[in-house]
Amino acid sequence: MNLTVLFQVWVVGFFLLFFTHLRHHVITSHKALWVKKGRTLFTMATETLQFVVNRHKVPVTLFILMYIDVLRCQPFTIPFRTPSDCGAEEFFDISSLSCVRCGPNQRRSTTGLSCVCQSGYKTVTTDKASISCEKCLPNKPGVTKDGFGCIRCPGGLSNDGKCQCPPGDVLVERDLNGTLLEEARCETCDEDSPALSVPNRNGDRLLCAGIILMYLAVLCKQVVFLQGFSNLTACQALGNMCVMNMHSFSSASTDACALFNNIFRFRAFTLSECSQLFRRANLPWLYYGDEPGVAIRVLQTDPVPIGFSFRGKNKVNFRLLAAVYNVRGEFLRWEQVGGQNLQLCPQPKTKRAAAFSFGTAYKESCVLSVAQLFATHPEPLFYDVFLDLGGGENTKLLPLPTLIQNQQYNGRFINQESMNNWYLSRRMFLVDTLSGREKSTSSQPKVIRVASSVKIRFQLVPRTQEGKVFPPLMTVTYTDVLITDLNTQTVATTFAVEYEMDQSEARLKTDIALGVLGGVAVLYSLLKTISWKRRIASSFIDLETMVKFLLFYAGDLANVFFAVTVGTGLYWLIFYKAQQFVSVLLPLPAQEEQFVTYIGCAFALKAVQFLHKLALQVTVDIFLIDWERPRTKTNRSVPVSGESKHDTSPVSIWRTYFVANEWNEIQTIRKISPTFQIMTVLFFLEVLGFSNLALRDPWSNLQRSPEEYTPSYSLTLRYGVAALLWLCIGLLQVIFFTVFYAHFVEDKIRQFVDLCSVSNVSSGFLCLSYHIAALDTTFMESLCAQRGLLPNTEVQTFQVSLTSRLGMHYKKIQESISRRNQPSRLTDASTLSSLEPHFKAYQAMNHFLGCVIDHAHSDMDYIVKDKLMFESVIGMEFLEPTEKSIFYNDEAHTFSNVLYYGNEATLLIFDTLFFCVVDLGSQSFLLAAVLTYVQQVIFRFLRNSLGRKNLANKTLVDERFLI
Amino acid sequence: MNLTVLFQVWVVGFFLLFFTHLRHHVITSHKALWVKKGRTLFTMATETLQFVVNRHKVPVTLFILMYIDVLRCQPFTIPFRTPSDCGAEEFFDISSLSCVRCGPNQRRSTTGLSCVCQSGYKTVTTDKASISCEKCLPNKPGVTKDGFGCIRCPGGLSNDGKCQCPPGDVLVERDLNGTLLEEARCETCDEDSPALSVPNRNGDRLLCAGIILMYLAVLCKQVVFLQGFSNLTACQALGNMCVMNMHSFSSASTDACALFNNIFRFRAFTLSECSQLFRRANLPWLYYGDEPGVAIRVLQTDPVPIGFSFRGKNKVNFRLLAAVYNVRGEFLRWEQVGGQNLQLCPQPKTKRAAAFSFGTAYKESCVLSVAQLFATHPEPLFYDVFLDLGGGENTKLLPLPTLIQNQQYNGRFINQESMNNWYLSRRMFLVDTLSGREKSTSSQPKVIRVASSVKIRFQLVPRTQEGKVFPPLMTVTYTDVLITDLNTQTVATTFAVEYEMDQSEARLKTDIALGVLGGVAVLYSLLKTISWKRRIASSFIDLETMVKFLLFYAGDLANVFFAVTVGTGLYWLIFYKAQQFVSVLLPLPAQEEQFVTYIGCAFALKAVQFLHKLALQVTVDIFLIDWERPRTKTNRSVPVSGESKHDTSPVSIWRTYFVANEWNEIQTIRKISPTFQIMTVLFFLEVLGFSNLALRDPWSNLQRSPEEYTPSYSLTLRYGVAALLWLCIGLLQVIFFTVFYAHFVEDKIRQFVDLCSVSNVSSGFLCLSYHIAALDTTFMESLCAQRGLLPNTEVQTFQVSLTSRLGMHYKKIQESISRRNQPSRLTDASTLSSLEPHFKAYQAMNHFLGCVIDHAHSDMDYIVKDKLMFESVIGMEFLEPTEKSIFYNDEAHTFSNVLYYGNEATLLIFDTLFFCVVDLGSQSFLLAAVLTYVQQVIFRFLRNSLGRKNLANKTLVDERFLI
Repeated sequence: MNLTVLFQVWVVGFFLLFFTHLRHHVITSHKALWVKKGRTLFTMATETLQFVVNRHKVPVTLFILMYIDVLRCQPFTIPFRTPSDCGAEEFFDISSLSCVRCGPNQRRSTTGLSCVCQSGYKTVTTDKASISCEKCLPNKPGVTKDGFGCIRCPGGLSNDGKCQCPPGDVLVERDLNGTLLEEARCETCDEDSPALSVPNRNGDRLLCAGIILMYLAVLCKQVVFLQGFSNLTACQALGNMCVMNMHSFSSASTDACALFNNIFRFRAFTLSECSQLFRRANLPWLYYGDEPGVAIRVLQTDPVPIGFSFRGKNKVNFRLLAAVYNVRGEFLRWEQVGGQNLQLCPQPKTKRAAAFSFGTAYKESCVLSVAQLFATHPEPLFYDVFLDLGGGENTKLLPLPTLIQNQQYNGRFINQESMNNWYLSRRMFLVDTLSGREKSTSSQPKVIRVASSVKIRFQLVPRTQEGKVFPPLMTVTYTDVLITDLNTQTVATTFAVEYEMDQSEARLKTDIALGVLGGVAVLYSLLKTISWKRRIASSFIDLETMVKFLLFYAGDLANVFFAVTVGTGLYWLIFYKAQQFVSVLLPLPAQEEQFVTYIGCAFALKAVQFLHKLALQVTVDIFLIDWERPRTKTNRSVPVSGESKHDTSPVSIWRTYFVANEWNEIQTIRKISPTFQIMTVLFFLEVLGFSNLALRDPWSNLQRSPEEYTPSYSLTLRYGVAALLWLCIGLLQVIFFTVFYAHFVEDKIRQFVDLCSVSNVSSGFLCLSYHIAALDTTFMESLCAQRGLLPNTEVQTFQVSLTSRLGMHYKKIQESISRRNQPSRLTDASTLSSLEPHFKAYQAMNHFLGCVIDHAHSDMDYIVKDKLMFESVIGMEFLEPTEKSIFYNDEAHTFSNVLYYGNEATLLIFDTLFFCVVDLGSQSFLLAAVLTYVQQVIFRFLRNSLGRKNLANKTLVDERFLI
Repeated sequence: MNLTVLFQVWVVGFFLLFFTHLRHHVITSHKALWVKKGRTLFTMATETLQFVVNRHKVPVTLFILMYIDVLRCQPFTIPFRTPSDCGAEEFFDISSLSCVRCGPNQRRSTTGLSCVCQSGYKTVTTDKASISCEKCLPNKPGVTKDGFGCIRCPGGLSNDGKCQCPPGDVLVERDLNGTLLEEARCETCDEDSPALSVPNRNGDRLLCAGIILMYLAVLCKQVVFLQGFSNLTACQALGNMCVMNMHSFSSASTDACALFNNIFRFRAFTLSECSQLFRRANLPWLYYGDEPGVAIRVLQTDPVPIGFSFRGKNKVNFRLLAAVYNVRGEFLRWEQVGGQNLQLCPQPKTKRAAAFSFGTAYKESCVLSVAQLFATHPEPLFYDVFLDLGGGENTKLLPLPTLIQNQQYNGRFINQESMNNWYLSRRMFLVDTLSGREKSTSSQPKVIRVASSVKIRFQLVPRTQEGKVFPPLMTVTYTDVLITDLNTQTVATTFAVEYEMDQSEARLKTDIALGVLGGVAVLYSLLKTISWKRRIASSFIDLETMVKFLLFYAGDLANVFFAVTVGTGLYWLIFYKAQQFVSVLLPLPAQEEQFVTYIGCAFALKAVQFLHKLALQVTVDIFLIDWERPRTKTNRSVPVSGESKHDTSPVSIWRTYFVANEWNEIQTIRKISPTFQIMTVLFFLEVLGFSNLALRDPWSNLQRSPEEYTPSYSLTLRYGVAALLWLCIGLLQVIFFTVFYAHFVEDKIRQFVDLCSVSNVSSGFLCLSYHIAALDTTFMESLCAQRGLLPNTEVQTFQVSLTSRLGMHYKKIQESISRRNQPSRLTDASTLSSLEPHFKAYQAMNHFLGCVIDHAHSDMDYIVKDKLMFESVIGMEFLEPTEKSIFYNDEAHTFSNVLYYGNEATLLIFDTLFFCVVDLGSQSFLLAAVLTYVQQVIFRFLRNSLGRKNLANKTLVDERFLI
């Protein structure tokens, strides 16, 4: 296949892909809106139906409400508020993370996280979280320590209106049963009973949950569930207990999560607040609901209302915020994710920050010592993670759905099943060194639980032009470490950020391109096979024809695979690295398998084609004819008959030797310098840093400082960069060597033709003919080095189509030459005698062809003509030589097809694929370069030595002259 | 220079170096002991004298005592003790870091860091740190709060024998003047005066120093100096003040360090405790004394009493311990250095640990945010750093001398001057956020001081065989950061561990080797010059002779430099990486300058030699003589006179063309494949990981995991590894190509000789003669391709030494050939006519030489003989051709000296040096490989095209046939 043709096909393929992509972008951006809505509705409808048919556990109304909510209130975000943002009359509600106004006679507590009654007011319970206050009567002016009662005091009143005892004494307000006394007492503590053992229960008037954590055994957690009003902290603590149990629950048992869910279901669902679908007032948000398909709706229905870009004013970096709670359920602070919290591995700040640069595939792994974890995480902290949507004063936060890999649901690891069964949750912790302690909180834990893998995955909205993503999913995997030796034990942790898009459309496009081009390849291979059949004048479709077709097809199909894979690689390289607003994201390693398979196919098929061509080249039939015309013009005036001169003069033999030797030397000349190619590609990739273009991040700068984070490589981009460089440098080299170097320095092929043509010195011309090994031979390609068979033409090479009569005649003589099997090695003594008959046959051939070319045989005459343009393009002749043989002018040096020189495209593509395949396997451009070099050396050596042997066998030139 | 000869010289040079090293090791290990003692005494004596003569400030007796101490008590180490190691009756003395027994009637305090009197005993002061106790009289049973007096109590006595007041009241024992009252009073605190303002002075009976830190302005520290007894914590605090001031003091001012030194000098020096030379009881150890030369004595006199090794049971890793104090002078704990303290940069644990692996050059740098430093270092901590000498129960610690770069001594930065002026110290801090605060300790500091560079330097004892080192030096540089914007400001920090040895001996050895080999090179170059003069039969010493000598000498000197540098590189590679007990350490980058200069010299000189050879090769005089003998034996029986045949037959021309063409083709054939060489070296270095051998650590494994710490590269080792690989692979290739490939596959040179020798086909022989461009020509080298000038010999090539008569004759004919200037380009029309006279001259030469060789001219006869062995080795002939010319048999193909083939050694060394020089400049083997390839391509192209032009000019063969 010609380079030009290949290039055309490739360009067509590339634009086909390119156009398909553009069309989608242009058309679908208008349609996107209603298509999406329609799709959402359809998905919902089918899934609801499916649910109603399959399961009947959860009230259908809830679902309908949910859908309404989904349609009405998307997207669900919360405003960013901190305790200090709240006004003097407001408190910070830690379950909704918002400011709520206090009731009458109330003031904000010192922490700002709740309201308390003003001094002298006791707390009156209500059903809801908000309290109301009532003034104490004058006879009982003191407010009890828990604030729920009024009491008489033994001494004075303190500033906050409570009873005061002398230092060292303890104020006692209740008896041992918890009943409020009429008057408080000041009692001195007995030293034998530690301070903690003084009865201090607030056992009355609790509505929601009070928790006593009893550390009885490893991982034993018992929650005392009491009816009462909602205690914010208590509910948070219960939630945290559930989180520490990895959100797992079963409907049969009564662990923390089951208790939490009971409370959750008990709470009425109200539509008063938009988007609070999965939440209940005063309860922490732990679950997204266990209905099937919720995960898909949450993760793939509505995009985040901001767009990401790789450069420019839009969002380039994103920010995650986390509300941090301690195990007692107290809200601690807002923290930015990264640095000290989710990224457990010690990393320089600059590298760590790369995790939050959109588009950079980030992964950090390390092994931490358990002792160090103990030191840095004395108690578990709980994180509610949000994506910061920006907005200055009115910063909005989007909650991140979390997928706990270890979460069990009635004993099943549902989150390791298909997405349809996922049970999304909220809130996670990093290190739990608490719940594994036995007996007391100060003892050493028997087991600790660590979030060994935290992965945040962004998924791009299909066909977006504005960098829209679905809500990012955080996947957490916990690992339990049984403590045996604190100081030597270690635990491996990972933090990763991934970016994903749906690749099915790209895959479809690739398959379409493959199918279309594959069909074209079939036609092209058929044409080649037909042309081949015509040239060997055969018309049967036998096994050989089939094999030949398959061999041709292998080459063409390899080109198709190559064009499609390079096109794909370039597509990703250009569209991913050059986009401003994110519209495509790289395929993940798991999504690249098909692509790698295609490259493998291309390489395997190309190798078949290459080996086929190599085999043809080293078995080609060649003969050299030194035909000195009878009308010789030497610079002597002595008349010697041409005949006798040809027979005896050693001149002819030396000239033949010279030509054969030169022919031998140009066997593996190429249009490029293969080593220079390798070196230059290596230089570009590794020294100039083009390999950095293949990193999984949006930056296209070539030099990276060692302080920067280095993401992993994308196989697709590696292939794209390597193949592009290889082809570009190869093409430049071809242009340089065929245009500049050949004209101004030297052109080996031209030199060879010129060498044969110095007829005004040698008074004759040399005819180098060959035909590709075949059963029958009526088509030859000749290098006839006299300047023109016709007057006033300077064409020196011809393709020859022989008539059957001439072909028969030629074949007969040729057989007499090749009758000997293998030429015996030339020994010094017997050289001349053993060669005698072959020289005779040679002379006969010389004489015969001389006559033919001189038009001496009128029944074997010939005409010289140009090929039609179309004939050269499809490589097939239309005229059949019936009366006269046809000599086609061949200015393009078609004879170089039996050399490396004429097969540059095949060789270049083979080298490219070899390089890329080794690189894909080893991820090392250097190793690929070295192996490619070795491969080239081996094949060149094979080609040279086999070609030399073949030349010696076919032309009777002693191998010693082929140096 | 021949490869063999070069190799011999190189081996000799290498063993010379090797032996010198071994000799030192064997001999000096026995002498080491007394040599060292003698050296120490001598140093001391001279320095004392110098001191007494030059300065007269410090009492001489102190110095003598110091010397006695140095001789008697070395090495100075302390045992490792922690407060918990001390017995019930002992306290932990934080200034000496040891356990000290309490006196009678005393018990250990609760912290374990001091003794206190038992209950009911008052403290009686003494002159020293230890206290004595006296029972209180019954009329004053209470002990005062400071423990120094007895007093009557208003209420009862507490458990520890002190007066007790009701809660909320303050016990007052003294009046405002500090005088002890007869009876204590219980007083209620006035709320207006904060607790701190209550007079609480222990103003009496203080011997050493009490400190009130008054934060009046930035960096303002005022120390109140009061006479009294030593208060351990107060002295520590004073010391810490001095440390925060970077140990700087001047005798004029009264800052913390000056105050400290005043107290220090006031203290008597006693010999009671061994090695406490630089210390005083109860005072923290801050200085090593300001006498000149102390630093040299401390750092370079006595080795650490343990040996380090790179593998095996001995010390491979070392451990640094630090006693940590807070700013108030309280001892906090023992900490292992690394991890959280001195290594400020966040690094994975595995990398961080590499800092304490002996022999690994460690350096970590990073930029820390000031805000983060604030969070992690709320108050300054002070570290006394020790080297752990091991010993199980009786672990010994060696104090690390510290060099504060910023330390000022009377306004001079003495520690940035020469080592003789250094003023070593102890104790350092990392971050001081305290002393920059204005007005109060809770305000934000205006400036913070950070230890921006901490460097620990080990120095190897010269000629040690057991890995002995001198006490390691810790160099600290502090940086002041003016706080402008806390959140955005950053500060760069570095932590490094370096290993050093005295390189003067190695440098001396190198210089000796260079001198000796350089001398040999002069002789060898002289010999070559003489030989050259003889061959051109010239005896004047003119400018050309001088230039020629210098050119020869450049080549030989380049070889000397190359041998010495490669030897040095290998020496370090082998001795450093293979040693078990540390006896050598790599030169630091600053110590490598001379080595790099040598490599540069080698390269520059080699380049001169290479260009010289190239110039000679492309200007060499060549002529081809197709001499067909009169008694021709063709396969024809037609008798044709030899004369006419030579004139007319085109055979000769074609044969000549063929030979010339082949000669052109073997111009740049080498004994190695240069590209394969580059690829293989690259493969070994970068794919197999040999480049890791050049890392500055003791490990010799080729593959490093990315989790491991990667130290910097040593230029010496890089050069050693690269040159070794290059030479080894080159040598293997030469062996492969000359032994295996040439025998079993093909040998281009042999093929060329054989081509010329196929005389039984051509019935003649070809003589390719050339002589190196010179004024006069009587020495030629010939390739005369008839099998033997003498019967029964098969020698085909000769070196010819002509008699002056033959030489003259030859020259005359040759001049007629070269009379034309430049051959005009062959045009198709005028080719034959323009060449006519030259062909004539050619035929004359043919005829003349034919006659000579046939012994036809009796006055120009010749003999054939073998060269003597010695003649071939030194490259000079002893016999002068007077009567007869001499044809020396030359089976070694000396003619290849005018090709690349015969100069493999020069080319290989030039390539090696080119590769290494590029690598040393760029630290990239890949770039070096690419540039070496480009260099080879350029020079090969030049050599080919210039050689081809030269061949065409000199042999009259049309360039079109040289393809």
